[in-house]
Amino acid sequence: MESGDKMYLWAKELFPITRSITGEGVRKTLKYIKDNILDGLHIHSVPTGYKAFDWEVPKEWSITEAYIENETGEKIVDFKNNNLHVLGYSTPVDKWVMLDELKNHLYSLPQQPDAIPYVTSYYKERWGFCLSDNQMKSLKPGKYHAVIKSNLKAGVLNYGELILPGESDKEVFLSTYICHPSMANNELSGPVVTSALAEWLMTLTNRYYTYRIVFIPETIGSIVYISKHLEHLKNNVVAGFNITCIGDDRCYSFLPSRRGDTIADKAALHALKYIDPQFKKYTWLQRGSDERQYCSPGVDLPVTTIMRSKYGTYPQYHTSLDNLDFISPYGLQGGYDAVKQAIKIVDTNCYPMVTTYCEPQMGKRGLYSTISQKGSGGDTRLMMNFISYCDGTKTVLEIAEMLDAPYNQLFDIFTLLLSKNIVKLKR
Amino acid sequence: MESGDKMYLWAKELFPITRSITGEGVRKTLKYIKDNILDGLHIHSVPTGYKAFDWEVPKEWSITEAYIENETGEKIVDFKNNNLHVLGYSTPVDKWVMLDELKNHLYSLPQQPDAIPYVTSYYKERWGFCLSDNQMKSLKPGKYHAVIKSNLKAGVLNYGELILPGESDKEVFLSTYICHPSMANNELSGPVVTSALAEWLMTLTNRYYTYRIVFIPETIGSIVYISKHLEHLKNNVVAGFNITCIGDDRCYSFLPSRRGDTIADKAALHALKYIDPQFKKYTWLQRGSDERQYCSPGVDLPVTTIMRSKYGTYPQYHTSLDNLDFISPYGLQGGYDAVKQAIKIVDTNCYPMVTTYCEPQMGKRGLYSTISQKGSGGDTRLMMNFISYCDGTKTVLEIAEMLDAPYNQLFDIFTLLLSKNIVKLKR
Amino acid sequence: MESGDKMYLWAKELFPITRSITGEGVRKTLKYIKDNILDGLHIHSVPTGYKAFDWEVPKEWSITEAYIENETGEKIVDFKNNNLHVLGYSTPVDKWVMLDELKNHLYSLPQQPDAIPYVTSYYKERWGFCLSDNQMKSLKPGKYHAVIKSNLKAGVLNYGELILPGESDKEVFLSTYICHPSMANNELSGPVVTSALAEWLMTLTNRYYTYRIVFIPETIGSIVYISKHLEHLKNNVVAGFNITCIGDDRCYSFLPSRRGDTIADKAALHALKYIDPQFKKYTWLQRGSDERQYCSPGVDLPVTTIMRSKYGTYPQYHTSLDNLDFISPYGLQGGYDAVKQAIKIVDTNCYPMVTTYCEPQMGKRGLYSTISQKGSGGDTRLMMNFISYCDGTKTVLEIAEMLDAPYNQLFDIFTLLLSKNIVKLKR
Repeated sequence: MESGDKMYLWAKELFPITRSITGEGVRKTLKYIKDNILDGLHIHSVPTGYKAFDWEVPKEWSITEAYIENETGEKIVDFKNNNLHVLGYSTPVDKWVMLDELKNHLYSLPQQPDAIPYVTSYYKERWGFCLSDNQMKSLKPGKYHAVIKSNLKAGVLNYGELILPGESDKEVFLSTYICHPSMANNELSGPVVTSALAEWLMTLTNRYYTYRIVFIPETIGSIVYISKHLEHLKNNVVAGFNITCIGDDRCYSFLPSRRGDTIADKAALHALKYIDPQFKKYTWLQRGSDERQYCSPGVDLPVTTIMRSKYGTYPQYHTSLDNLDFISPYGLQGGYDAVKQAIKIVDTNCYPMVTTYCEPQMGKRGLYSTISQKGSGGDTRLMMNFISYCDGTKTVLEIAEMLDAPYNQLFDIFTLLLSKNIVKLKR
Repeated sequence: MESGDKMYLWAKELFPITRSITGEGVRKTLKYIKDNILDGLHIHSVPTGYKAFDWEVPKEWSITEAYIENETGEKIVDFKNNNLHVLGYSTPVDKWVMLDELKNHLYSLPQQPDAIPYVTSYYKERWGFCLSDNQMKSLKPGKYHAVIKSNLKAGVLNYGELILPGESDKEVFLSTYICHPSMANNELSGPVVTSALAEWLMTLTNRYYTYRIVFIPETIGSIVYISKHLEHLKNNVVAGFNITCIGDDRCYSFLPSRRGDTIADKAALHALKYIDPQFKKYTWLQRGSDERQYCSPGVDLPVTTIMRSKYGTYPQYHTSLDNLDFISPYGLQGGYDAVKQAIKIVDTNCYPMVTTYCEPQMGKRGLYSTISQKGSGGDTRLMMNFISYCDGTKTVLEIAEMLDAPYNQLFDIFTLLLSKNIVKLKR
Repeated sequence: MESGDKMYLWAKELFPITRSITGEGVRKTLKYIKDNILDGLHIHSVPTGYKAFDWEVPKEWSITEAYIENETGEKIVDFKNNNLHVLGYSTPVDKWVMLDELKNHLYSLPQQPDAIPYVTSYYKERWGFCLSDNQMKSLKPGKYHAVIKSNLKAGVLNYGELILPGESDKEVFLSTYICHPSMANNELSGPVVTSALAEWLMTLTNRYYTYRIVFIPETIGSIVYISKHLEHLKNNVVAGFNITCIGDDRCYSFLPSRRGDTIADKAALHALKYIDPQFKKYTWLQRGSDERQYCSPGVDLPVTTIMRSKYGTYPQYHTSLDNLDFISPYGLQGGYDAVKQAIKIVDTNCYPMVTTYCEPQMGKRGLYSTISQKGSGGDTRLMMNFISYCDGTKTVLEIAEMLDAPYNQLFDIFTLLLSKNIVKLKR
């Protein structure tokens, strides 16, 4: 099965689970990944009340039922039909209220009257329902029975972590999140592409870097994770990718790290340029996911984001319309390939250095025509240009940018020259 | 009374005084400022012959009468009518001469036939009269009686100085000049705006910097002042403003320091951008006032100039047309506000630094919506962007430029965050 | 005789010699230069087999006859008519072959059917003839007698070297090559312009730098030369010029050093800008002569190239059409003047520094009007701008670029100010 199809299948199976930042949905999601894809995944638990910098792990939320019944006993809104119908982290309720009062607890999107919006209230206790604006407007005056069978109590926050050792202790960091209920691009594309990348990385026998891969609840999860590993991450992570919104077909997008000039930024930009020269380049000011934490002052990890359609930029975002029709095997495959190429660049990039002074004699190695005539040498121009920059101060990626050539082509030249002892490798 | 009106009134009262680089006019001007505005102003005297680097304080010049009489006894040119009529620093004369000889001592502007030009000869002894080109051309052949009752003898050069201590020993330097006879934009706008700024600075109880404010004769005055305080100025001045040509209504102008990238430059550019995005930006090569001395090699103070119409760029410049009609309360007020804003930026600018790792939890402090839904967060975007750059290496001004937002708006955000202990201040 | 005419005459006399990278032709060429132009030229010999980094000096090649005879005894191709007819470094041959076999040894240019191409095979033993494509196509089936009386045996590689000491041990390096048979722009323009430059340099009594001037075979010659002097060159050469393709009339061209920002680059770019603002600016990636060795990683000398029509860009290049008609006294003179101006800039460039604080008083030195009136000072603006940058951190050349003025004009101002003790010189 092609990677795209495989990822789409995983997304389909994970779609119905009612995830939130804590609770059974997160655990089911992590267990699915561990059981079906990444056997080595470690699932961690952090207790309610754990202090992470300015934040605290909230109570654990569980929910079994949530509906609104009208006077005739008809369930007009039911969480069983779509888990977006309940406000995330709703407190329990069971009472009959008049429409006017009910409306204080209803959330809809007048601009997208068909869509059920995704709304949460993690840090202030509330109850509520989300529904389409069309349905909202059709509600007749009268009494309604609001029922939410939920629970907010001390528990744990869970996340998954997988570490794949490499030749170096320095690390490449992949982070994705598993806290959104039934939505496809944001977020299931993230965990399924990340799982496929982890699978691929496990097949590599010559990883240069160590890979640290986490599946966490957004915001509170990344903050907790940073608080537990701050010094280690600061000392070891050379490049990181936050993986989200990477499954639709519409475009490729890039969001830089706060510093903007890390190797993660450069590798991602180079990879995307050759995949789709029209990719959208956002700025740090347009951020909105876990890079907000990873790149925050004092943490400042080199974390960047390669996406298809960026969160907040497509109408389906954070609504019931971000469903399995919005992503595709083709879209997931493209996103996967882009991040994979960026990772390949990071992992193999190095400082090539010629082993001699002056130009090497290419002819005696069969790398240059032995006849010198007008126009000869044209086909080896790229190789000679590459060599001319192999002074040990420029990486293969930097030379690729200087020569306006794709990394893979130059890396092949580098490998050939390495085999001929014309260049040596410096990290 | 509004500042603009007050400044205009001062200019009106100072206008008739016959100023030059030395003499009674300078003393009268300084005394007016001391008696009416800045009681703490110190008036200094430097003797003729004092050596300042490559220069020397010239003899003191005084003048009581200057006229040209024709054969019928009519005073056709009289210094009493306009003090521009006499060549600045004229030696005394009292003789009848033929028109041809007289013409060797007359100065007019053929391009502006109605204007009396402003001409001086400080460092070479001459006598002469200035008059409109129309009048010049109307002179009939014959004898003329040239009378100048002036005096050039050992005396002093005067300047005024006011020092307002702040929390820091580091200084902001304001310099303006008081050596031009009856002209309004160049120069009376300078001393009156500087006086008003000094008044305002005296009302501030929390000045961070110490303010050094001088009223000097142009060129020789600044050279003398630098020669007396070179090491102190080099060690202490963090920003300076040369205040001139700041009273007309036509435009705003900026002339950079020699280095071009000092905090004085940055603050002035930022202030002007938000006052008038169309302000004129000159280069160092277009300089022409005391920044020539303050920014000279080896002195190199961070002195920049905010103006309305720059010297040399408006036709009235250095003629009798640069009179009280050319400046206005409105023009003076605008110039005053621009320099004040630049000073405010310099004085309050600092390096904000977050007090936690990762984003602070804004919700619990009432600074962020506790409901998370599509589109929420938009109104706090600027605050979150600001926080994301509070890493202790960027000033509020630098962040304002990065976020393309006015300094005052960001400074208000900074103050709020400071009060909530989310950021701390580093100088 | 004008320099251009003189250089053209030398080129004419050197034209018929059969040069190659070794052998009698090189020696004759060097001897001509030594006997007729540069008496002090040292002629060096390096033996076959000498190892220079990744290269080795090849066997010495000599040739006396080379022709193709048809069945009727007619010499249809004869090296005596044009020494391009023989493949450079051809091994000897003397046999009758059928046309089909002969064609394996024939080289022509289908795109330029009238031109005899210039082809060599220095490092692989072959025999061959070069001829016009028209002649090639006219050959009738049959037997042909191929005769090459050549010799490949242990011998020497020769080069010429001239060192002109200056005040400083630091060096300016001029390199040109003397290995091409009868072609005019590439290459005889190189040695004749270099010879004329050496003549001029010898007339200078106040050379600041020491001048190292070499006449070498291209590629192998520069590699051998570098291998013998690597440390010395790296420690001493401040600027270098590779002199080639500098005799035609069509345009001026510039090829930068690998680093691109050396004083040689800056001086050449400045010189060309004022000679012909339309000059062609190539990049390092378009290189193709000895800068490939001089600027290679680890060697990295500041060597740049000023040309007329660059090698490879004009159709006559490396063919019999690059003859004495393609170059001209006028073209040679222009090339000579351009390199001369770049050398002048390098040799005289320094860091001027004012001798006083604040502006010097120009009036008392007769350098500024003693009357100050509107518009006065305009004619001394350039001088005052120059002085304002004389802070000891900027060279005359850098100030020329900042003021957008030609170096010579500023150097004259500098010399005047030096004579008045207003500035002093720092190297």
